[in-house]
Amino acid sequence: MKNMVLIPFLLALLSFTSHATDDKVNNFCVADLKGPNSPSGYQCLPPNSLTVDNFVFSLPVSNTSNPIKTGISSAFVNDFPALNGLDISALSVIMDSGGYIPMHTHRGATELIIMVEGQMTAGFLTHDASYVKTLKPGDLMVIPRGLMHFVANYGKDKVVAFAAFSSSNPGIHSFNDIFSNNLPSDILAQTTFLDVAQVKKLKDRFHGSG
Amino acid sequence: MKNMVLIPFLLALLSFTSHATDDKVNNFCVADLKGPNSPSGYQCLPPNSLTVDNFVFSLPVSNTSNPIKTGISSAFVNDFPALNGLDISALSVIMDSGGYIPMHTHRGATELIIMVEGQMTAGFLTHDASYVKTLKPGDLMVIPRGLMHFVANYGKDKVVAFAAFSSSNPGIHSFNDIFSNNLPSDILAQTTFLDVAQVKKLKDRFHGSG
Amino acid sequence: MKNMVLIPFLLALLSFTSHATDDKVNNFCVADLKGPNSPSGYQCLPPNSLTVDNFVFSLPVSNTSNPIKTGISSAFVNDFPALNGLDISALSVIMDSGGYIPMHTHRGATELIIMVEGQMTAGFLTHDASYVKTLKPGDLMVIPRGLMHFVANYGKDKVVAFAAFSSSNPGIHSFNDIFSNNLPSDILAQTTFLDVAQVKKLKDRFHGSG
Amino acid sequence: MKNMVLIPFLLALLSFTSHATDDKVNNFCVADLKGPNSPSGYQCLPPNSLTVDNFVFSLPVSNTSNPIKTGISSAFVNDFPALNGLDISALSVIMDSGGYIPMHTHRGATELIIMVEGQMTAGFLTHDASYVKTLKPGDLMVIPRGLMHFVANYGKDKVVAFAAFSSSNPGIHSFNDIFSNNLPSDILAQTTFLDVAQVKKLKDRFHGSG
Amino acid sequence: MKNMVLIPFLLALLSFTSHATDDKVNNFCVADLKGPNSPSGYQCLPPNSLTVDNFVFSLPVSNTSNPIKTGISSAFVNDFPALNGLDISALSVIMDSGGYIPMHTHRGATELIIMVEGQMTAGFLTHDASYVKTLKPGDLMVIPRGLMHFVANYGKDKVVAFAAFSSSNPGIHSFNDIFSNNLPSDILAQTTFLDVAQVKKLKDRFHGSG
Amino acid sequence: MKNMVLIPFLLALLSFTSHATDDKVNNFCVADLKGPNSPSGYQCLPPNSLTVDNFVFSLPVSNTSNPIKTGISSAFVNDFPALNGLDISALSVIMDSGGYIPMHTHRGATELIIMVEGQMTAGFLTHDASYVKTLKPGDLMVIPRGLMHFVANYGKDKVVAFAAFSSSNPGIHSFNDIFSNNLPSDILAQTTFLDVAQVKKLKDRFHGSG
Repeated sequence: MKNMVLIPFLLALLSFTSHATDDKVNNFCVADLKGPNSPSGYQCLPPNSLTVDNFVFSLPVSNTSNPIKTGISSAFVNDFPALNGLDISALSVIMDSGGYIPMHTHRGATELIIMVEGQMTAGFLTHDASYVKTLKPGDLMVIPRGLMHFVANYGKDKVVAFAAFSSSNPGIHSFNDIFSNNLPSDILAQTTFLDVAQVKKLKDRFHGSG
Repeated sequence: MKNMVLIPFLLALLSFTSHATDDKVNNFCVADLKGPNSPSGYQCLPPNSLTVDNFVFSLPVSNTSNPIKTGISSAFVNDFPALNGLDISALSVIMDSGGYIPMHTHRGATELIIMVEGQMTAGFLTHDASYVKTLKPGDLMVIPRGLMHFVANYGKDKVVAFAAFSSSNPGIHSFNDIFSNNLPSDILAQTTFLDVAQVKKLKDRFHGSG
Repeated sequence: MKNMVLIPFLLALLSFTSHATDDKVNNFCVADLKGPNSPSGYQCLPPNSLTVDNFVFSLPVSNTSNPIKTGISSAFVNDFPALNGLDISALSVIMDSGGYIPMHTHRGATELIIMVEGQMTAGFLTHDASYVKTLKPGDLMVIPRGLMHFVANYGKDKVVAFAAFSSSNPGIHSFNDIFSNNLPSDILAQTTFLDVAQVKKLKDRFHGSG
Repeated sequence: MKNMVLIPFLLALLSFTSHATDDKVNNFCVADLKGPNSPSGYQCLPPNSLTVDNFVFSLPVSNTSNPIKTGISSAFVNDFPALNGLDISALSVIMDSGGYIPMHTHRGATELIIMVEGQMTAGFLTHDASYVKTLKPGDLMVIPRGLMHFVANYGKDKVVAFAAFSSSNPGIHSFNDIFSNNLPSDILAQTTFLDVAQVKKLKDRFHGSG
Repeated sequence: MKNMVLIPFLLALLSFTSHATDDKVNNFCVADLKGPNSPSGYQCLPPNSLTVDNFVFSLPVSNTSNPIKTGISSAFVNDFPALNGLDISALSVIMDSGGYIPMHTHRGATELIIMVEGQMTAGFLTHDASYVKTLKPGDLMVIPRGLMHFVANYGKDKVVAFAAFSSSNPGIHSFNDIFSNNLPSDILAQTTFLDVAQVKKLKDRFHGSG
Repeated sequence: MKNMVLIPFLLALLSFTSHATDDKVNNFCVADLKGPNSPSGYQCLPPNSLTVDNFVFSLPVSNTSNPIKTGISSAFVNDFPALNGLDISALSVIMDSGGYIPMHTHRGATELIIMVEGQMTAGFLTHDASYVKTLKPGDLMVIPRGLMHFVANYGKDKVVAFAAFSSSNPGIHSFNDIFSNNLPSDILAQTTFLDVAQVKKLKDRFHGSG
């Protein structure tokens, strides 16, 4: 009975929602990674094909058996398509004692470090100052966008941390990327003030050429 | 003669306008609703296929023969493709005496109510205050984005009003949407503090399940 | 009793809301027009000083006893401070038969015309086309941002219309503004292709000099 | 010697950096919470007064001795001024078995849930669907902005989780906020379809009036 | 040897860069001009098909044998696809003595004039003021977005200048565009306050009709 | 006479322009550099205090008598307050044969190089590629925001060039900034993979400590 009474009401509301499928697009735009990209991101998957699993991403377990003793798993838009257009992403970090993440920048995003376990030293640099602190569980640290920064575990215990970013694809530009491409060593030395021998040594190490 | 003189001038200006078709795209981007959506909106129809009729939308006449005694016609981007990418939209409201629009929010848009006829009571809520006023013709009221609000006609006369929004698709999230989906009643009761009986009653009314 | 039980719960929630005053600032930022302006707008009035009246604006009744037979009342941020930072504004138009609003642009906003009474002809221009239509009550027309446009009442009846804008201060740059300042007439004639006599005539009419 | 050679070089570079103090402002704009707010956020503290401690925030330990068995600590711009203008923030959640966070929305932000310990069920709602999943450590879930959502611990173990937001002040609009203000009960009942008795019961519980 | 040691390290870093192709998309999004446009711009060309030549554009040499004695070459997104989504563009100007660029506006962009050779007079207009100055090599002048402006060479020597814009497609709306379309002359005269004869003369000159 | 007729018309238009002073603020917001900064920029100077000279900036003549044989003059918002809030800025470069600008990034801006005289080699780097080209007069090159880049004059002639940026304060983060602050040398060596001796040598050269 009540439902009967409500039918005209629901029809009235349908003027809001007559494009039911399209309307969902506007609640979220999960990326179709197979389609083209654009300055605002990827095209949207059809909303009626989506389930809760599109909105959940299980960070892969990363291991620390590598020279930087650090495992990193990213959840950027190319990993987790539901982030498309939503200006947020994250990554997880596991770091053994002595581990570190080299100096790097994020082109288009602020980073917010979230400490969970252990003690991790984090720092960012400006022209004339360094801002460095050893973080404990429950600490947050903000790395303003575009600034060079690093993290390192100078403690004895394993570190577990997360980082959130203000972009669905923050970009990671590692300091050592300058050594992994084919820019000639003499140009690189001149424009970085590094010695040529140093440049060649690191080009060799990071598989650069030139 | 004058035209002859102007021809080189016009050719000179053509360096500005040599992509005549593409250039129009940049004056406006009327949505191709058949194509994919993206975080910034739909792809543009070819600009040389457009006429003034693409830029005009006649709001359908809505009737008020429904339980909320209110007729609503929306002009959002899915109704009126010329709004694509332009951060504006509108709707019209006709409301008989005793009519109302239930509590709802607009996800991504501020609303500006424009009163034309009759007297309509409008209100929005924050955590510890309500902002409620009976509006007269010529009154505007702003509903800051994301806040829960309602309108109602407690007068004797018919109400005619419009609302403009700061988005081409403001989204409408009605309070009663929490009852029209399949979230289990016990979870819904727990997380809203409503009584289970109340939840079940409204789930029944709004065709929800679970 | 129940309230007693809820007190710790409310205290728990207060971790969200411990800066009660500041928090409201984030729901809305009603302009302090006496303070300085900035690229994002005016500073916010203290939120706890606000009532519903800050969110309602009664458009002044405008009269049409003027050469353009048109009355316009604007609700831009300087008129209606609650619009500060909210990317929306509006104006009302009353237009006698034969009235019109001269060619103009809005620097930073799309316009959405909302027709209420009478018949109004509206048009906008691009380099090689005009988009002109006579609008009836219930019609909407979008003027993409930055394009030159006009409206006129070529019918017999009074026109009542509103316009909404995608900015809290859309700017109005009337075509005839080129005649109301002090740019020398010869420069103005040269750079507009108008005849000098025409320029001088309109400089005289619109109180320009030079 | 080398430094001597570099002095003119450094002077040359000083054309970039002659406004040393102002330049730092542009690397970051830590909020002066005592000053006025604006649509883009707070004014910046003088950059040369800042140390690394301005960029680190220790989330307070929250306890779960409350009816929702949940402790929440927020790091929004009013808590952590370094987030000013940076479009990111976070909070931490500790939740005993049986705990939950009631239905709520974030006005202007997407939420990214980061699971650390235990199992937490999270869900968001649209008009005709619910998206609900029980999350495990290492899982991320995205709540598209503006949608109603909840979390609950239906497991036996304590839950530890974080949430990141795409705004420095995401706003929290709890479902039960509709009961804590002074909107008259009959209006609230009408516009929510809730029974008046239910409304009065919850107004009593959440200290609302009217 | 060292490379061997680094291999696990590089594998570790690959968790950042496992979508190598997609990742480049995010460094830049060079327009595929053959594909559709959208409110945020064109779709991106596959990043691995790009070379440095995609990022370099040689402005065509423009000549000044025309009534305005001015050659203009634009580098907007439709000319130079690498600008897609990057909010910047430019043009070059060569102007003989006596040359000028007629009054015009840029719909969506601020202009920054960069003077290289000669002396050029530039001016912009508001409702009640004109801001005019003769610029010398090394001078910059900013034209706030949307304002009507012109440049002219009242000196004896050739002018060379550039203009940069805060949009990849700033739009150019010349004053005389009002005469090159098909808006009827009587409507145009009425809404601009120009004499009908003046309108007809310029419609004739600029190939307008109506 | 005509003016008399127009007076009521002008009064009618004054409904648009009754806040004459405030209205100008919205045409432009020239920075008050003595006031506080905010995330959207500086507060605006009173618009009625401004003349054309506020909108013109003469780039200082820079000399090349320095180790990088390069003179740079910037016109960022702190140099040229009219750029406040306008998302554009510029700089000029003069470079003797053998001169160069070291590797650097711009935190928040795309750069558009505009070549005027001589031949300049410009290059930017990604993880696995370098994009390098020798530019001639009339060439433009775009440096997508956030990427490491350099320019150098390997020709015989003097170079004159400009660069435009998509921000009123693009930020300049030179590669060698990592050596001019107080981050301890051992941490810097570890996180950059540089040898400690190299780090100490450059810390000495760039006046860093630690």
